[in-house]
Amino acid sequence: MKKIALLGSTGSIGRQTLEVLANLGTDYKVVALTAGKNAEELEAQARKFKPAMVALHDYEAAQRLTEALADLNIRIESGDEGQVNASTWSDAELVVMAQVGFSGFLPLIAALKAGKTIALANKESLVVGGELLDRLGLLDRSRILPVDSEHSAVWQSMANAQKDEIARVYLTASGGPFFGYTREKLHEVTPEQALKHPNWQMGSKITIDSATMMNKGLEVIEAKWLFDLKLEQIEVVVHRQSIIHSMVEYIDGSIIAQLGSPDMRAPIQYALTYPERKTGLVERYNPFNSQLTFESPDRQNFPCLDLAYRAAETGGTMPAVLNGANEIAVENFLAGKITFIDIPAVIESVMTSHQTVKNYNLKDAVTADRWARQKAEEIITGCKGRMN
Amino acid sequence: MKKIALLGSTGSIGRQTLEVLANLGTDYKVVALTAGKNAEELEAQARKFKPAMVALHDYEAAQRLTEALADLNIRIESGDEGQVNASTWSDAELVVMAQVGFSGFLPLIAALKAGKTIALANKESLVVGGELLDRLGLLDRSRILPVDSEHSAVWQSMANAQKDEIARVYLTASGGPFFGYTREKLHEVTPEQALKHPNWQMGSKITIDSATMMNKGLEVIEAKWLFDLKLEQIEVVVHRQSIIHSMVEYIDGSIIAQLGSPDMRAPIQYALTYPERKTGLVERYNPFNSQLTFESPDRQNFPCLDLAYRAAETGGTMPAVLNGANEIAVENFLAGKITFIDIPAVIESVMTSHQTVKNYNLKDAVTADRWARQKAEEIITGCKGRMN
Repeated sequence: MKKIALLGSTGSIGRQTLEVLANLGTDYKVVALTAGKNAEELEAQARKFKPAMVALHDYEAAQRLTEALADLNIRIESGDEGQVNASTWSDAELVVMAQVGFSGFLPLIAALKAGKTIALANKESLVVGGELLDRLGLLDRSRILPVDSEHSAVWQSMANAQKDEIARVYLTASGGPFFGYTREKLHEVTPEQALKHPNWQMGSKITIDSATMMNKGLEVIEAKWLFDLKLEQIEVVVHRQSIIHSMVEYIDGSIIAQLGSPDMRAPIQYALTYPERKTGLVERYNPFNSQLTFESPDRQNFPCLDLAYRAAETGGTMPAVLNGANEIAVENFLAGKITFIDIPAVIESVMTSHQTVKNYNLKDAVTADRWARQKAEEIITGCKGRMN
Repeated sequence: MKKIALLGSTGSIGRQTLEVLANLGTDYKVVALTAGKNAEELEAQARKFKPAMVALHDYEAAQRLTEALADLNIRIESGDEGQVNASTWSDAELVVMAQVGFSGFLPLIAALKAGKTIALANKESLVVGGELLDRLGLLDRSRILPVDSEHSAVWQSMANAQKDEIARVYLTASGGPFFGYTREKLHEVTPEQALKHPNWQMGSKITIDSATMMNKGLEVIEAKWLFDLKLEQIEVVVHRQSIIHSMVEYIDGSIIAQLGSPDMRAPIQYALTYPERKTGLVERYNPFNSQLTFESPDRQNFPCLDLAYRAAETGGTMPAVLNGANEIAVENFLAGKITFIDIPAVIESVMTSHQTVKNYNLKDAVTADRWARQKAEEIITGCKGRMN
């Protein structure tokens, strides 16, 4: 029986992970569940999966949950500590990190330090901390199993390849709902339009990131750290159908690709069952009468992709700043406070103001993240300059 | 240094194998070369690669070669014995079998009995003898490395998968030069047209087999034996661009595919360098701005595919009969003696007359092959019934 801790269980990936686990049956046991503040859903999950502990980041919500679960013998925690305790839960053999954004960073470090095997859906933690973890010798790639569909595809396409046999990696991008739009048209797109992804059912933050192509930019940085690649080895190719989830090109010209229906339950399950495969919930892809296309991304009108490459080239705290500014810009776009094309403008502006700290430590990363968020908010509310 | 015996060195695959070996350099050494009757080309190859032995199947040609190579210390053999001695050459660590048609059968058995590792380009030998070799316990799949592009793709896409994790295999087919043709149009196609394959540079026999779809039928049978699959697990999908060389679908719905430029030097090199990959001569495939399509094969107008499935279902000596009749039909089509649509008609007619021997032995296979050839010739020359 494989024992699982799941962080971020009430988000899109978290819910789908529980759906997959329920289907996999008694070979898998949930031992810890965490969320941010959704006490109601976490209570329902706890009643169904009977973990030994649950944690909510929000203190008040955790209080309510404690009362709600009083009839069950479940340990209930809160704050950063609760998340970290779940990610290092002694009984857990596999820690699924399905949180959104920067919040995955501290639990990831803790889990790596504790020697856990991690199914990683939280790309932002590697964007922020990949360089640091690598420098500290904590980035044991054999213990980080990717859940992002693209990185799962790369992982599956690498099988037992040697690193020096890999020429390049093609990360596929759907292009999002606005592929082909002019700058004029992008001016007017609404959050509702941006939330309608053509192929994937995902949470709101990643769906907006998909529309701006920032998602692919973050994935480029994630891929760099997960697979120990040079940035020049990572190419982004627009593949509108989202059937080929990514490809690995070898030095002999051979390319291995992973394909399938666009359904996150597929890469989630692979990370859970690895090194085995098991029948699952995903509808199989029928190739007959289909057409797969590859195009170049529009780097002019979707500048987030190049901002991410630029942040990765700069290194140090810059990727944390890219990520922090993006999280705030996306929140403000969803709240109707800025337009779609303001998103890259805000991020670029924050990045330009940032004094990169090279060879950063954990505190530097946290500070850079906070600084970037505050700076982004200032730019958005017009209070520019207060921080400088 | 890896020592290589190459059978069928003057054919298309043989020549390309030597090209790849010359490029790979001094880590590889050719120790034996064989061909059918092309003494001039084999002489030139022998002078360049300095093998310890060479063999021509044709006795007269071997005599001429003996005189031509008198100045070199190279052992020269002839007949079936020469081919078998090359395929079991004690010094050879890898035996490349690049002969065309049934002629690969006896050397393959001998090489397997001798415990050789084999790079197999000769699909006909597995079509004829797969069932027999399997029954005799000689089909050690870890020692047969596929060279056919489709089977190399399947092999590469299987990596370290478990057999019970494989749901199905998609063998891709270009569809050949006549895909989409009506029966009326197929009536009139000439050998010259049939020899113009849209994507691949290959020998004449396999090029005609591609045009009739018999090549894919033989590959289905080859795949069944190479990968220990049920026939129902093997699907043929027309993929006009010949970029995806085949795909493996797993029980979790994930599909792994191998892609690359249509260039036989790629799968040849992979079989030679396996388990490593090395830079090679093949131009890399650039996915940008390309389009990959999948269609169903036209089983009505290209009945050879279903004839192959039918032969494989029948088993016993029937696949040998399918193959023998096909070899004769192709020869006669190339000689202008029958039309393109006569090819499946002749094969079907021979198959219908055949009394299948179940649990066949080596002699039965050879007899069935001879019988099928004679029967096909009779049908073609109108002397039907003489054999019955």
